[in-house]
Amino acid sequence: MVRIDLNSDLGESYGRYQLGNDQELMGLITSANVACGFHAGDPDVIAETVTIANQRGVAIGAHPGYPDRQGFGRRYMAMKSSEVEHLITYQIAALAGFTKGHRLHHVKPHGALYNAAAKDPKLALAICRGIQKFDPGLPLYGLAGSELIKAANQIGLPVRSEVFADRAYQADGSLVSRSQPGAVLTDPEVVAKRAVGMVENQAVTAITGEIVNLKADTICVHGDNAAALALIKQLRLALAENGVEITAG
Amino acid sequence: MVRIDLNSDLGESYGRYQLGNDQELMGLITSANVACGFHAGDPDVIAETVTIANQRGVAIGAHPGYPDRQGFGRRYMAMKSSEVEHLITYQIAALAGFTKGHRLHHVKPHGALYNAAAKDPKLALAICRGIQKFDPGLPLYGLAGSELIKAANQIGLPVRSEVFADRAYQADGSLVSRSQPGAVLTDPEVVAKRAVGMVENQAVTAITGEIVNLKADTICVHGDNAAALALIKQLRLALAENGVEITAG
Amino acid sequence: MVRIDLNSDLGESYGRYQLGNDQELMGLITSANVACGFHAGDPDVIAETVTIANQRGVAIGAHPGYPDRQGFGRRYMAMKSSEVEHLITYQIAALAGFTKGHRLHHVKPHGALYNAAAKDPKLALAICRGIQKFDPGLPLYGLAGSELIKAANQIGLPVRSEVFADRAYQADGSLVSRSQPGAVLTDPEVVAKRAVGMVENQAVTAITGEIVNLKADTICVHGDNAAALALIKQLRLALAENGVEITAG
Amino acid sequence: MVRIDLNSDLGESYGRYQLGNDQELMGLITSANVACGFHAGDPDVIAETVTIANQRGVAIGAHPGYPDRQGFGRRYMAMKSSEVEHLITYQIAALAGFTKGHRLHHVKPHGALYNAAAKDPKLALAICRGIQKFDPGLPLYGLAGSELIKAANQIGLPVRSEVFADRAYQADGSLVSRSQPGAVLTDPEVVAKRAVGMVENQAVTAITGEIVNLKADTICVHGDNAAALALIKQLRLALAENGVEITAG
Repeated sequence: MVRIDLNSDLGESYGRYQLGNDQELMGLITSANVACGFHAGDPDVIAETVTIANQRGVAIGAHPGYPDRQGFGRRYMAMKSSEVEHLITYQIAALAGFTKGHRLHHVKPHGALYNAAAKDPKLALAICRGIQKFDPGLPLYGLAGSELIKAANQIGLPVRSEVFADRAYQADGSLVSRSQPGAVLTDPEVVAKRAVGMVENQAVTAITGEIVNLKADTICVHGDNAAALALIKQLRLALAENGVEITAG
Repeated sequence: MVRIDLNSDLGESYGRYQLGNDQELMGLITSANVACGFHAGDPDVIAETVTIANQRGVAIGAHPGYPDRQGFGRRYMAMKSSEVEHLITYQIAALAGFTKGHRLHHVKPHGALYNAAAKDPKLALAICRGIQKFDPGLPLYGLAGSELIKAANQIGLPVRSEVFADRAYQADGSLVSRSQPGAVLTDPEVVAKRAVGMVENQAVTAITGEIVNLKADTICVHGDNAAALALIKQLRLALAENGVEITAG
Repeated sequence: MVRIDLNSDLGESYGRYQLGNDQELMGLITSANVACGFHAGDPDVIAETVTIANQRGVAIGAHPGYPDRQGFGRRYMAMKSSEVEHLITYQIAALAGFTKGHRLHHVKPHGALYNAAAKDPKLALAICRGIQKFDPGLPLYGLAGSELIKAANQIGLPVRSEVFADRAYQADGSLVSRSQPGAVLTDPEVVAKRAVGMVENQAVTAITGEIVNLKADTICVHGDNAAALALIKQLRLALAENGVEITAG
Repeated sequence: MVRIDLNSDLGESYGRYQLGNDQELMGLITSANVACGFHAGDPDVIAETVTIANQRGVAIGAHPGYPDRQGFGRRYMAMKSSEVEHLITYQIAALAGFTKGHRLHHVKPHGALYNAAAKDPKLALAICRGIQKFDPGLPLYGLAGSELIKAANQIGLPVRSEVFADRAYQADGSLVSRSQPGAVLTDPEVVAKRAVGMVENQAVTAITGEIVNLKADTICVHGDNAAALALIKQLRLALAENGVEITAG
């Protein structure tokens, strides 16, 4: 049976600042990328998010980011490899402290760190080493076909290929930049159909028409607002109708 | 054979800011309280400190503090019990991520957190719960006879009683405030003799003359400067001459 | 003609985190307490908030707080007087940099800093000195009758007495703690009537029945939600009906 | 008479962390670049540094940097122009709050911000706008011939061209990267002679032999250690012997 994981970013609140619809989102996804307290989240938010994820049976992954709370980890920072490695180990470990000995399910780098590492082999390697140092069996979620996947394979770190059903792809398998027209797809039907195609064919049609092969282990979804939540529901329905099992694996 | 542990704060550098004489200090102590990145330290400093401690055979403990880097964790902050609990779990776990699966040796709260918890049962309990959540078998270092010891005993957390050979005690077993005359002893011979007495008699003479019984599992020493390092050497010599084994146990 | 100022906290968003209804609130108040980037706000939020305040003709005040973003400045921190003084000067000055040379209207300390200083003469004095250092003619907003007012008077700093129409008072003029029953009044009619009484009589009835004289220069209002905004509207209406001019003065 | 300013970075301590030899350095320079509390410094350090500079008659400039204390402002961060502009205004203003109404002497961006802006016209413009917003008459210190100088000229911001007597130059007037051999000159006599040549000829010989014209309004010197301080003394002597007046102007 064909299987797919649905992952989403969670636990992004901070102190008095509330962000996201974690409770509702938890009912729709199979694995959670939990912010670790650097770009978002804090020890209290982590404790609460882990509790909810456990109650809802959602697999818990670490979502480390740049040490830039004001920029929400979305601003590239020029860090040395050793700094990145330690940054990653620290954040994963801190989160894992709240799971009462249960092994984390995965690690997904956040924002600018994820995007930069998809194209930068050295940065990708530093991230993988940071994970491996904490737990050599802990899988990385990385953009399908990107340098993150290559770096993980290079050092023998388990890896899951992530695809985006609501984003346009270029012929080389990279994402079309959000600043380009047509980069983000918003029609739930289109996105749902696209997700099914990605899972069934392990391929997607590029914005320029080419068929791009890409491994699809997990689909990234969002919970920012009601429309985003509705889109996930439609996507789940389409996957189920096509006999795809939705599971963190 | 009588045994004692010598502990000291380490890993307090931060980014470009260097603090302490960790390399030399590591050769004189048996257990290290490693700053966890909130009041001092950062992921890079932690990685380096853990490496050195392992090379020198020094037992590694977590040294969590208030989230106040500018104040170096020395300013009391009014936090809720749940906030303290999560703060502690987060910091211990983050540090433990750098020890490659080896269990931490102990946890010693830092600065204002340690001092406030010595007198505040509720705060002491929150700290103990934060440790217990991470690892119910991980020992707490707390001021001998203080609320920290009582709280740990109350919930079954292992505990080590800490004494200060260079500080004056009050008749109730609390430390004389540093602002008082005679609060800090600086003569290495006096301090060394006092340390031997504490270990052999499990008691100390208060500043007002009374004999105060206190359990002495570990002695806190400092590495701030050459005089401090010389004092540790004298203290080690005196302990050895009196047949006391110096070990983290 | 009797006059009153209506002040409220604004500019509390931070990076991606949105907080408050600043646009709507700006239409209902006469002076804004703008967060300065320590407990809330950041340079971008400050720039935007100052722009909106200027557009709406709202007087701009600085709202400095403890350096504790996670705690939103609501957790007491034990700081030295010199630390408090510099903390205040820094935050006021930073905000003033965005007002293009226009003098600030006032300074109101935030949260735990305001509450602690209302009772602590030393802390109150440090705050006043921090303001005076920046601009000896810049008025402080402090709780009517509190140590903040006394400290300002002591060193010749201009001061405005602040009252809370939606809070119960004790016979000594202090606020009933929020943890007590009856501490917060929510009925818009009651609050509005109470506000008119405070302005007209420069007095309020304590929760225990006594008449408490208090100078009322400015009333603190909130914009957290629709109910809070509705309450301000009712309060404005009642003041207008009773011939009170609403102005920052 | 030929004149030159000697500037240096100061006020880089933070909380318990001491950095630099500010007291001694203050006796050797004419203008100070004072860290503003983002990459280094804090309100207490600023207050102390401004006091010492005033005592020693050293002109006070603002030294704003990236919001990255762990990286000491030396790691490039991808920020939007509006974010940079507000970051600059905030830091300058905060520092100016401690000078009791005396106008600041200049602004010099720190570390990665300075280096990136020397080559990036958009970033340079954002920095200049941030200064102009605070005070349109406040001079910028920028690398001679760089995009910082061009941006300031473009919007009419006063500017001072900075040269480095201890750094090798490329034929295009940019600095040879520190990672290259020969990038940093350490012989005090060579550096002193080079400084005199820069001031007298408004030119320097590139590492590849070409004569590079560059305006020399101010020379950057360092106070990191005894050797650095000795180098400044030799440089001052050589300038004086050649009839160059050392003054902040």
